[in-house]
Amino acid sequence: MHLISYDIQNDSLRTKIAKTLIRYGMYRVQYSVFMGELSPRPLHAIEKALNAYALHPQWTTEDAMMLLPLHQYSEDHIVFLGKEPDYWDEISGKMHTLFL
Amino acid sequence: MHLISYDIQNDSLRTKIAKTLIRYGMYRVQYSVFMGELSPRPLHAIEKALNAYALHPQWTTEDAMMLLPLHQYSEDHIVFLGKEPDYWDEISGKMHTLFL
Repeated sequence: MHLISYDIQNDSLRTKIAKTLIRYGMYRVQYSVFMGELSPRPLHAIEKALNAYALHPQWTTEDAMMLLPLHQYSEDHIVFLGKEPDYWDEISGKMHTLFL
Repeated sequence: MHLISYDIQNDSLRTKIAKTLIRYGMYRVQYSVFMGELSPRPLHAIEKALNAYALHPQWTTEDAMMLLPLHQYSEDHIVFLGKEPDYWDEISGKMHTLFL
């Protein structure tokens, strides 16, 4: 399971990156935060795509992305306040099948 | 070490919550993502404050917060693309002292 979050200034580039993350199996849990289980192949594809986006003409020096691999510990202790992410059962169900 | 992220519609409420997180030792690593080591007392204070914010008149049904306790595994494998968070050495230095 990975958490990927970003600060991307340009609307068009941000939309492209979001679509890429979702295409490879991530779920949007907050506006700029995505989670999902990534097996090695889609993880590698995402890393490759993100490295390419960081060289995109619309990428600014203020732009940032964080890729954070999560441990089962995090899933077991996650807390939501307010609106829970769409598809959370599906996301967390997938997390249970993950071995680190 | 905790990661806290939010989607908060109201600017004033969002600013209040950000200030609360920082006051209790969290660092802003992205616009809506905070990380920091929280010992039990400030963690409890943050949880209490956030539960109160979720009852605030400016809180909307679309608003969401996520509290995610992190394992050392996450720190060991974190990747940044683009701009690295301010104070990252300090944040990650603190992480090394954390036992889960």
